Amino acid sequence: MANEKPRGPVYYADYLQLDRLLSSQQMQSALHGRPAHDEMLFIIVHQAYELWFKQILWELDAVLATFRKASVPEEGVGQAVSHCARIVEIQRVLLEQIDVLETMTPLDFLDFRDDLMPASGFQSVQFRQIENKLGMRRADRLQILDAPYTSRLNKEDAARVEASEKEPSLFDAIEDWLERTPFLNFGDFDFWREYRRAVDTMLAADRASIRSNPTLTEAEKAKQLEGIESTAAKFADLFEEKPDAPAAAGRHFSRRALQAALLIHLYRDEPILHVPFRLLELLAEIERNFTNWRQRHAQMAMRMIGTRIGTGGTSGAEYLDRAAERHKVFSDLSALASFFIPRSKLPALPPEVRSRMGFRFNAPR
Amino acid sequence: MANEKPRGPVYYADYLQLDRLLSSQQMQSALHGRPAHDEMLFIIVHQAYELWFKQILWELDAVLATFRKASVPEEGVGQAVSHCARIVEIQRVLLEQIDVLETMTPLDFLDFRDDLMPASGFQSVQFRQIENKLGMRRADRLQILDAPYTSRLNKEDAARVEASEKEPSLFDAIEDWLERTPFLNFGDFDFWREYRRAVDTMLAADRASIRSNPTLTEAEKAKQLEGIESTAAKFADLFEEKPDAPAAAGRHFSRRALQAALLIHLYRDEPILHVPFRLLELLAEIERNFTNWRQRHAQMAMRMIGTRIGTGGTSGAEYLDRAAERHKVFSDLSALASFFIPRSKLPALPPEVRSRMGFRFNAPR
Amino acid sequence: MANEKPRGPVYYADYLQLDRLLSSQQMQSALHGRPAHDEMLFIIVHQAYELWFKQILWELDAVLATFRKASVPEEGVGQAVSHCARIVEIQRVLLEQIDVLETMTPLDFLDFRDDLMPASGFQSVQFRQIENKLGMRRADRLQILDAPYTSRLNKEDAARVEASEKEPSLFDAIEDWLERTPFLNFGDFDFWREYRRAVDTMLAADRASIRSNPTLTEAEKAKQLEGIESTAAKFADLFEEKPDAPAAAGRHFSRRALQAALLIHLYRDEPILHVPFRLLELLAEIERNFTNWRQRHAQMAMRMIGTRIGTGGTSGAEYLDRAAERHKVFSDLSALASFFIPRSKLPALPPEVRSRMGFRFNAPR
Amino acid sequence: MANEKPRGPVYYADYLQLDRLLSSQQMQSALHGRPAHDEMLFIIVHQAYELWFKQILWELDAVLATFRKASVPEEGVGQAVSHCARIVEIQRVLLEQIDVLETMTPLDFLDFRDDLMPASGFQSVQFRQIENKLGMRRADRLQILDAPYTSRLNKEDAARVEASEKEPSLFDAIEDWLERTPFLNFGDFDFWREYRRAVDTMLAADRASIRSNPTLTEAEKAKQLEGIESTAAKFADLFEEKPDAPAAAGRHFSRRALQAALLIHLYRDEPILHVPFRLLELLAEIERNFTNWRQRHAQMAMRMIGTRIGTGGTSGAEYLDRAAERHKVFSDLSALASFFIPRSKLPALPPEVRSRMGFRFNAPR
Repeated sequence: MANEKPRGPVYYADYLQLDRLLSSQQMQSALHGRPAHDEMLFIIVHQAYELWFKQILWELDAVLATFRKASVPEEGVGQAVSHCARIVEIQRVLLEQIDVLETMTPLDFLDFRDDLMPASGFQSVQFRQIENKLGMRRADRLQILDAPYTSRLNKEDAARVEASEKEPSLFDAIEDWLERTPFLNFGDFDFWREYRRAVDTMLAADRASIRSNPTLTEAEKAKQLEGIESTAAKFADLFEEKPDAPAAAGRHFSRRALQAALLIHLYRDEPILHVPFRLLELLAEIERNFTNWRQRHAQMAMRMIGTRIGTGGTSGAEYLDRAAERHKVFSDLSALASFFIPRSKLPALPPEVRSRMGFRFNAPR
Repeated sequence: MANEKPRGPVYYADYLQLDRLLSSQQMQSALHGRPAHDEMLFIIVHQAYELWFKQILWELDAVLATFRKASVPEEGVGQAVSHCARIVEIQRVLLEQIDVLETMTPLDFLDFRDDLMPASGFQSVQFRQIENKLGMRRADRLQILDAPYTSRLNKEDAARVEASEKEPSLFDAIEDWLERTPFLNFGDFDFWREYRRAVDTMLAADRASIRSNPTLTEAEKAKQLEGIESTAAKFADLFEEKPDAPAAAGRHFSRRALQAALLIHLYRDEPILHVPFRLLELLAEIERNFTNWRQRHAQMAMRMIGTRIGTGGTSGAEYLDRAAERHKVFSDLSALASFFIPRSKLPALPPEVRSRMGFRFNAPR
Repeated sequence: MANEKPRGPVYYADYLQLDRLLSSQQMQSALHGRPAHDEMLFIIVHQAYELWFKQILWELDAVLATFRKASVPEEGVGQAVSHCARIVEIQRVLLEQIDVLETMTPLDFLDFRDDLMPASGFQSVQFRQIENKLGMRRADRLQILDAPYTSRLNKEDAARVEASEKEPSLFDAIEDWLERTPFLNFGDFDFWREYRRAVDTMLAADRASIRSNPTLTEAEKAKQLEGIESTAAKFADLFEEKPDAPAAAGRHFSRRALQAALLIHLYRDEPILHVPFRLLELLAEIERNFTNWRQRHAQMAMRMIGTRIGTGGTSGAEYLDRAAERHKVFSDLSALASFFIPRSKLPALPPEVRSRMGFRFNAPR
Repeated sequence: MANEKPRGPVYYADYLQLDRLLSSQQMQSALHGRPAHDEMLFIIVHQAYELWFKQILWELDAVLATFRKASVPEEGVGQAVSHCARIVEIQRVLLEQIDVLETMTPLDFLDFRDDLMPASGFQSVQFRQIENKLGMRRADRLQILDAPYTSRLNKEDAARVEASEKEPSLFDAIEDWLERTPFLNFGDFDFWREYRRAVDTMLAADRASIRSNPTLTEAEKAKQLEGIESTAAKFADLFEEKPDAPAAAGRHFSRRALQAALLIHLYRDEPILHVPFRLLELLAEIERNFTNWRQRHAQMAMRMIGTRIGTGGTSGAEYLDRAAERHKVFSDLSALASFFIPRSKLPALPPEVRSRMGFRFNAPR
């Protein structure tokens, strides 16, 4: 820094490159000699989306750089939490922008809609990169008319999207990191064995309490016991040691990663798990927000063009609705509560494990 | 008013009945001797929801009182717009409240979840009344395990919900009001006939333009022409005079009401249609917001209890997701753009019709 | 349109000029060889602001084009309402973007803050243009260190800002339009005379009711009567015929324009006043939102740099706080309720006036 | 738990005490025989506020219970972060509710405003308790007409508010906790001495860089050097050892607590400081949000009643505006960045100190 040369003063407009930024709105309707007032909004809102996608990629890349390391430093997890929390705030803006776009009525859209054909938001390279970096796999994508999802991109853009598919994704990196969690086996403490025992105890107590409840009829007892057995069956699947069944849809963590995610959630108050817990929560929140954003887009597409077939050969609203359901990566995190048991029934961590989860300054406790 | 007696001063806490309001939070977990911190939030957020539902019903009832009249005065439509705009703002709060509830983690919920069994949001009488007053019909509801949707209510509550089913709904009242729109036939102006002509002209021009476009291959032409024919078929259905087919799902306006809704949208800049247009827009927005709210609830249910079967015998998340898709009333308004044509291709209104749509002060123009 | 040439297909990335848009983020910290992660956010958020400012100017210009006309057509007022409602939605995004920027901590900002000197948001030409087009006058602006507010702009930018000062502003155009309102005098109906009479009657009744209230002590009566006289004095100022005193601060409508604004608010349910009423409401809301945005910015400046003197020689937080208080245009609209009386005490409009305020289709009533 | 008796099923309406909750809306205008539609909204929105105030108090009390302890356990800080983050989300709802209330126009308010006299939001006991529990002192409050701020409460309510004044506040508890931070002196590491040295070095380098900058004129150099000296003076005040000057306004942390807050911000990436850092950030955010909420309320009061003197003898808008400026507790945290220096210039922590700030599991590093 000693070598930094004195530099000239920075000017706001130059710094932000406003000459380029503010001259990049060319209305197609104006080119055709009948400018449509609302096309400006249409351009600006999409440009704002792309700016924010760039920022999301910037944050995602920072998280990926940390988590692709063989050993993730403690500060790195904290910083990843900040990056993800920022993505969540950006997503609030993305959602709010839909409200702005909805000030355009369908009739106003029709004034220039045909001028844009066949351009479409499906062609957003950055959004595909976000999906791929999060961990969306080609096979899990909704197929449009048997064409690959890159079919409407030009060659260069398709290549960029495909490149992002090949890099290790955040899903992969998080799975690796979870698998390395040290606390699953710790001396003769085996979290998984203890947890199974606690689940069995809980289910047994639940069954007993139903059977001995004098306020229930036999029919009610039967029904409630049925619920218990369904839960028991779910847990049995979780605990079975046989290799994972091929995923029906979406992505699934390895059994060991799933165990670690459970441990982190269930013992999140231990200091060393606090920040990892927030990270897992934020990943699930990011996914929920994108789902919600797609659902809002589906509603807007319906409002704007109704049930007509879009330029890509599908009804936009229907595609977006189905994509909202299907384009998920961290669904294991979203549904993790399926395997929670109440805190009061959790196996207690052995003191030496708890102590290792605390700060050096305070330890031992 | 001359007879009003002088009255004592009003005190804030008495006015808002804060003694009752603020003593109505009884945590079940506390009754069981192990108070769970987050149960207070759970109670408060649901009570806030119920307060807002009361307000939504208050606004809906005011709109219904206006629109159930044989003749709706002009000011009444303006006031209905205010009432509906207020409902939309309330819905923003309802959505924001989900963010608050999401500060509760699944593990914290488990601390008291079993204490609440089998209470459930499905038992909200006010929410069912909102649905029914909007126009939801029993037959269009998602069925839970073959039981009527009132099966989990006590007798008195079930009766209240059923009563709201029997009153004429907002859907009915709006349909009646639309059917009475005077401008569909006006002297020898027949909107429907003119509109059909305009659509035919537009489709013919579209076909010609595709056929003569030298930049398209024959295959591309064929594909684009296919799109035109699909649109043409949709319009043909709309224009056909035969009686309405029984609705496949959801509710459908009568042909005449649908025509009126189209007319209002397409000529919304005429002064007399300005306020009716806003009303139709708001009704569709209210529906979209409830859909979005159900979708967010489905996400939250998934996060809170995962895929486990809920107390009602279904997975809450799945039920809410499917209800979000199905529990719709004004879907005809949401998809109305299917039948729009660009403003530049609309039939011009005859001067005497336009004049009748203006203000007396300005007329004739 | 018959002459439009067939055109090539539009590509999303070309349409939005993404190559320019997404290559316009040059971090100063990177130029100095120590890239600061958060500078990207700083650039993106400000670029997004500038995009939205462009859109706000686009909407404002459309409103101005309508209201600078000698006679504003009825549809024009309706469209102005849509433009202003859109500005309000955009302002929600502007506010939400502050939440995103606040994910940057002061320490992260310090990593690149000095690299930006002396660039500052004060140099946003577009924001100054928005202020000027709304009607901010140079004399009403907060002065920074005796320098004109354009002193930190380059010559070209200063000229653009100054040009926007010279055009007739929205304040001017709205004032003209209000002054032309036909209903203030209508045959022998003189709104102002009738309103004064109603105010006097109301004040007299209020005084009598206090004096005869047996539940009040003499001291309480005296205090309440004092309140009445303060209100009476305010109204007296309003009704006095002498020419306007020079405004102390901010802008004030002419007496006639103020009368018209009052009439529009008080009789807003009359069909012809419905849309003008919404317009006045939206203008006041736009101003409130900018005030709120400045207040939020002041908070953020305090958080980011504390009470240190900013690069411009003032504490940013303090400047923004005082500007939020002072940079107002439509303050007469914001405080209009000072001169309202309850609807039940309003002078009734003569039937022929009401009839002229209705739709031709319905009239006479 | 073994002793818990089987209990009857819980019913939604009973659990939420809906019979009381939904029958607690008594419109004064209805009592006077002229029901005003919008009074229901006025009641509901204020009741919703009071419900949320109860929840905020619930969270605050939990934080206070933790921080009033002589030794705050690590998990306690993490839970306090959750409680404060929840308050922040609730504040988003409080702000959103203003948008709902703003759907009421001033004229609609006038329909029942006089019926409520002299009730006022100033009489909210819970809001005063929130202020007091945060740490607002009577002396720092804005005085209304020489009357104590409890003067408009009934005796019982005044007593409740005064009781909350006497308990140790969150400000007190946080100050104590900060003063106990172990890392300020650690062996022969004296944070304060090292920090002063780093500040002096930075200021010297800044001066030198200005003096040797060939692109600056002498006048520009002088002006920039003046800025440096003003910063230097601020730091000198901070470092001086003399006892604190009596606070001019608002509350100020003790020097030692301020040092600790600075240390936590500047070294927040050290694992043990991560959660304390979030807590300090959240406290400042909670304060900013209440300020913003007061500012929004001031705007609304202006819109609703203009500049008329309110029932309490002041203009509501003006009071709220000034209270927004003055009613602050954690202003030291809001302005802490005044004393930050860039990370690159921070004194490095000695390895043994850093090691003590890490997790036992990872240490030593």
